[in-house]
Amino acid sequence: MSSFFSGAISLSIFGQSHGAAIGMTLDGIPAGENIDLDALQKFLNKRAPGNFPWATSRKEDDRPEFLSGIVNGITCGAPITAVIHNRNTRSADYNEFADVPRPGHADFAAHVKYRGFQDISGGGHFSGRLTAALCIAGGICLQILARRGVDIGSHITLIEHITAEGFDPVNIDSSTFRELENLDFPALNQATAMIDIIDQARKAQDSVGGTIECAITGLPPGLGSPMFGGMENQIAQIIFAIPAIKGLEFGAGFDAAKMRGSTHNDAFCISGGTIKTRTNNHGGILGGITTGMPLVFRAAIKPTPSIGLPQESISLNEKTSKTLSIEGRHDPCIVPRAVPCITAAASIAALNAYIEFAENFSWLAMPTN
Amino acid sequence: MSSFFSGAISLSIFGQSHGAAIGMTLDGIPAGENIDLDALQKFLNKRAPGNFPWATSRKEDDRPEFLSGIVNGITCGAPITAVIHNRNTRSADYNEFADVPRPGHADFAAHVKYRGFQDISGGGHFSGRLTAALCIAGGICLQILARRGVDIGSHITLIEHITAEGFDPVNIDSSTFRELENLDFPALNQATAMIDIIDQARKAQDSVGGTIECAITGLPPGLGSPMFGGMENQIAQIIFAIPAIKGLEFGAGFDAAKMRGSTHNDAFCISGGTIKTRTNNHGGILGGITTGMPLVFRAAIKPTPSIGLPQESISLNEKTSKTLSIEGRHDPCIVPRAVPCITAAASIAALNAYIEFAENFSWLAMPTN
Amino acid sequence: MSSFFSGAISLSIFGQSHGAAIGMTLDGIPAGENIDLDALQKFLNKRAPGNFPWATSRKEDDRPEFLSGIVNGITCGAPITAVIHNRNTRSADYNEFADVPRPGHADFAAHVKYRGFQDISGGGHFSGRLTAALCIAGGICLQILARRGVDIGSHITLIEHITAEGFDPVNIDSSTFRELENLDFPALNQATAMIDIIDQARKAQDSVGGTIECAITGLPPGLGSPMFGGMENQIAQIIFAIPAIKGLEFGAGFDAAKMRGSTHNDAFCISGGTIKTRTNNHGGILGGITTGMPLVFRAAIKPTPSIGLPQESISLNEKTSKTLSIEGRHDPCIVPRAVPCITAAASIAALNAYIEFAENFSWLAMPTN
Amino acid sequence: MSSFFSGAISLSIFGQSHGAAIGMTLDGIPAGENIDLDALQKFLNKRAPGNFPWATSRKEDDRPEFLSGIVNGITCGAPITAVIHNRNTRSADYNEFADVPRPGHADFAAHVKYRGFQDISGGGHFSGRLTAALCIAGGICLQILARRGVDIGSHITLIEHITAEGFDPVNIDSSTFRELENLDFPALNQATAMIDIIDQARKAQDSVGGTIECAITGLPPGLGSPMFGGMENQIAQIIFAIPAIKGLEFGAGFDAAKMRGSTHNDAFCISGGTIKTRTNNHGGILGGITTGMPLVFRAAIKPTPSIGLPQESISLNEKTSKTLSIEGRHDPCIVPRAVPCITAAASIAALNAYIEFAENFSWLAMPTN
Repeated sequence: MSSFFSGAISLSIFGQSHGAAIGMTLDGIPAGENIDLDALQKFLNKRAPGNFPWATSRKEDDRPEFLSGIVNGITCGAPITAVIHNRNTRSADYNEFADVPRPGHADFAAHVKYRGFQDISGGGHFSGRLTAALCIAGGICLQILARRGVDIGSHITLIEHITAEGFDPVNIDSSTFRELENLDFPALNQATAMIDIIDQARKAQDSVGGTIECAITGLPPGLGSPMFGGMENQIAQIIFAIPAIKGLEFGAGFDAAKMRGSTHNDAFCISGGTIKTRTNNHGGILGGITTGMPLVFRAAIKPTPSIGLPQESISLNEKTSKTLSIEGRHDPCIVPRAVPCITAAASIAALNAYIEFAENFSWLAMPTN
Repeated sequence: MSSFFSGAISLSIFGQSHGAAIGMTLDGIPAGENIDLDALQKFLNKRAPGNFPWATSRKEDDRPEFLSGIVNGITCGAPITAVIHNRNTRSADYNEFADVPRPGHADFAAHVKYRGFQDISGGGHFSGRLTAALCIAGGICLQILARRGVDIGSHITLIEHITAEGFDPVNIDSSTFRELENLDFPALNQATAMIDIIDQARKAQDSVGGTIECAITGLPPGLGSPMFGGMENQIAQIIFAIPAIKGLEFGAGFDAAKMRGSTHNDAFCISGGTIKTRTNNHGGILGGITTGMPLVFRAAIKPTPSIGLPQESISLNEKTSKTLSIEGRHDPCIVPRAVPCITAAASIAALNAYIEFAENFSWLAMPTN
Repeated sequence: MSSFFSGAISLSIFGQSHGAAIGMTLDGIPAGENIDLDALQKFLNKRAPGNFPWATSRKEDDRPEFLSGIVNGITCGAPITAVIHNRNTRSADYNEFADVPRPGHADFAAHVKYRGFQDISGGGHFSGRLTAALCIAGGICLQILARRGVDIGSHITLIEHITAEGFDPVNIDSSTFRELENLDFPALNQATAMIDIIDQARKAQDSVGGTIECAITGLPPGLGSPMFGGMENQIAQIIFAIPAIKGLEFGAGFDAAKMRGSTHNDAFCISGGTIKTRTNNHGGILGGITTGMPLVFRAAIKPTPSIGLPQESISLNEKTSKTLSIEGRHDPCIVPRAVPCITAAASIAALNAYIEFAENFSWLAMPTN
Repeated sequence: MSSFFSGAISLSIFGQSHGAAIGMTLDGIPAGENIDLDALQKFLNKRAPGNFPWATSRKEDDRPEFLSGIVNGITCGAPITAVIHNRNTRSADYNEFADVPRPGHADFAAHVKYRGFQDISGGGHFSGRLTAALCIAGGICLQILARRGVDIGSHITLIEHITAEGFDPVNIDSSTFRELENLDFPALNQATAMIDIIDQARKAQDSVGGTIECAITGLPPGLGSPMFGGMENQIAQIIFAIPAIKGLEFGAGFDAAKMRGSTHNDAFCISGGTIKTRTNNHGGILGGITTGMPLVFRAAIKPTPSIGLPQESISLNEKTSKTLSIEGRHDPCIVPRAVPCITAAASIAALNAYIEFAENFSWLAMPTN
């Protein structure tokens, strides 16, 4: 619970935004896996603000230092721990928020839960910065899955009122994922309009949200479990660890609620000797278990709560109204930087289910009398 | 994992649709809690098909037998186990589906995962019937929470294209929950139009889906945790155990993605001496932790996959196309019967978080040197 | 926690001694496993009091009813639930113990923990009777392991001051396990002297304890994990669920503390093409991981706390001294009946580790690019 | 599992002996707790080899660096992560053991489990050095418990054939714990004889084992749970994470097996208005739950497996016999340095149970209608 995830693989995420370091420990990764640290860094860089108009102008250089679990670039079976040292040390900038909680932030909730002892600086353990640790874990899982034919990609399908087409859920092509990896702004179409909207919000000292779609291809059928161990449950448990996520839907998602069964049900067919479905409203999961079709889900990201416009809040001490203006360089839209986070969360959930599945797979392979 | 949920309270759900019995074990419930079995039965009856045009005409009489954990109507601290014996014994009706998987059902996925050994009859462990066990657990939690001022209610907000207004997320009145409990069709408005749509689908041998909204009032601020232990994570982990759920959103949900920060952020204010927010787009959760505002979420339910219309499938053995017609009495819409299931899942998650919170609460109360 | 065990397989044990039923749910067992219910019953009967001078003269007929998870004698992948209905209904016999806790029993501790709401009758959830449920789970695991060449047996090595030789830890022969299964009193030697000691205790209205040794053969090397997931940790977590266990030791155990390294270290050698050790002081586990040598451990069982002799206790209500005499038919020694419980606990831990290991095993078998 | 422990508090231990660093993450510690880092360092120093004849002459300076969770010396509610950087970098000294496994070490078992990819250097993740991380976690828990009147101490009760008296289990005095903390060699009596035995073993290029007793005083009655959540289960799950532990016993332990019930049962009495027992054979736990009497347990530590004497092993590659001589500076007896590790493990288990108990405690304090 809390900042520990336990399954076939276990993950702990630690650190506060302005503490000494943030980091993660990932346990249960099989020994003997090559980890390409350059490719991992490239993946992490997708989360970095970069020099783009849609992101904060702060400089964050997230270079993980590996403390354990990898010897000569290969996993040794021991827990993998990596840390990113923080350059921004504890500052006085956030002292105000100890008394006047920022709307849309965890300040007030954390104040109650931790009785005033929470680390306020930079949002502490609640900072979006912690997703860098999630991306380290996810980036490792992604590489291990890729070697087994499992591919994962995410893109932006909505920014405020600008919508873009989703993946073709039946025939997702890995080349699309490669294309996305090379885009600064990870949208397959409508990128210009989206960037424009973000720019408008920035100029208005405001912010916008959006939607990210993620697809996982190459998962064999049979992963996941009924009930609490379903693929949806596992993905949800990790995805909602990303701050700012307000919704999650699989396959046709909320649109499924508007369909008739005759339209929504995906007909089974045989294609190239493999059992497939003609459509993919089920999003690659039935009964919590993968069907072998692409696993497709979408997450809704709220607009960045830190905005320059004055906002109404209260003083916790004085119990009076206060107007709050959040200064500084904030992302007018965190959706582009959330894209690798969504991929990372999907990778962790997918590898977890894949390793659990390996049990089942090997059960047959184990010798019997 | 799978059919075990573990937290401050633990829950195991067992049984197959046409096996000897279904049931549940709930552990971690404090001793000394009165359980009103009549009120529990009334809650379970909301899930029963009843004699309504929107439900199957099958007769299901779900009377739980308590095997342990309750002595003279009071919890004794030991695990609570209840079973519902099945009257429908294993039948030959489902043999066809062993070879020809039903579109939209778990048949194919289960066939792969369990290598043909799964219990096909009635959908086995994947049957919606298992939600009766979830409702026993949830109904117990609901009573314990009610005694502490936490109230939970759910209603239908969409059936196919008919939408109804949601709860007022800022000022939800418990009397609304009481009103809902007394409705056969749990919709606050548009019930007639919704029932009509379901009837049309039934006549067309088709089915429709919908959306359910749930609100939890009276939760103190400070419940839940950052990261994987967030309220969203906990609720999601249980909600997605209900078959047919395709999406889940909190507060403004997917609409949040379309808002600007200045609109989405909920201003803090002091009302009646208590810290509140003027709006409730955050749905009562910030940073994974409750704020004291009503916790509001919505779940999308897909149309019942069992329809009378002929559907395209395949023979697993022959690897050829097959047309499938599902005979029998099926719900043209399971949304009304899913309403208590959503309430049950919310109750389990809320009590789990509440007991975890009690740790925090009592930490202060424990004597120190 | 509490009455839930979670690992690659999950186990919930429920029921109170004089409640409606006791039982267990076992989840995570692979589909397709034959369960021989007659053999299981035979295993459970080893725990039954029988008509022996060393056991209570109460009649307990423990016939499990399977509610789920097994179809036509074969596991279907869904959770396996079995219950044993109690014939002894709640009685007034135990009312005294609500006020005057029995020395050596959980009465007082439970009274504090459950604030007087605990089920006192027959010891409630703390009764040794609950081990019947553990034996159902263990008996199932035992059969599944046997099919894969893993064999498990237990015997008595001490009753009060009568000691018997342990297994030869290097060359344990399965025929010894078969021999033990056919003995009424599961001791390989000194059985007569042990039975005599128990009889003396019975006549003196007193009780005696003893030690049980268990061996697991056929486990491949590589099962278990370092740290908290070690084989010792896993076995301990389940073994200590059996009431009355006061100690647990692996391999040379407490005697290891008296040895020099040169004697205790087990030399590696190659025997029949396989890497073995010449001695087995390590008990088949190094670094928490199996070595392929027989896994050997011993558990100390305290004397039955229920004795006829008068004992000093107190009245919880009156806060005064009380003398307590426990009437009725109690086992003068529970060690013989604890033997199958130890085997059961070992079986559950071993299968759990075996399935986890299957992950590792299959990881190699899974296709890579 | 593996290197993650999950309960009311969660603990992850990471690192390899000669990797970049070892460390730990501890989650679930309430906010607002002062952590005295000097006192913690003093506790960690008890594990350091020092300049004593009974320990290795290697210099280990274990100074933890805190990366998160503590702000200005006070816990902030976020996970606490601390690392100790290794000065010994990966060396070639251990290459031999990749092929020729050391008797009594995890080398062979790890080789099989991790298929040759394990980190051999210094024993990797299996090194006793990892207990420094356990001691950081335990030292923090110890301080938090002390503030609530819970006191923990450990001492040596046996080295090879030299035995020392245990604590008086009924009347343990905290001054004894303070006395122990100030001893270089933590034995209350027979220290000289024990040190002498260790010195003899060292001169003979051999090693000796021993037994450590631990007592926890001040625990309120009612902590722990029946079945898998018992105090014994929780302590065992953590204690067996310490390498070299071969046995664990509570209260009278293995001696209980030799007693009659009339002697072993501890009579209840009222002393100073409190319910106590006249003797403490039960070791402060009945039915898995604390009774309020001192919780007492003993652990058996095997002789250090690294000895200078030549030993028989095999070459994994050549499948032939090999004679192995382990050079270098090894502890002739790790028992003295294991003493703080036992205290640390007990502290973690005790705080975990204490926080779980707080749930129960506060349940009463929470407002009801």
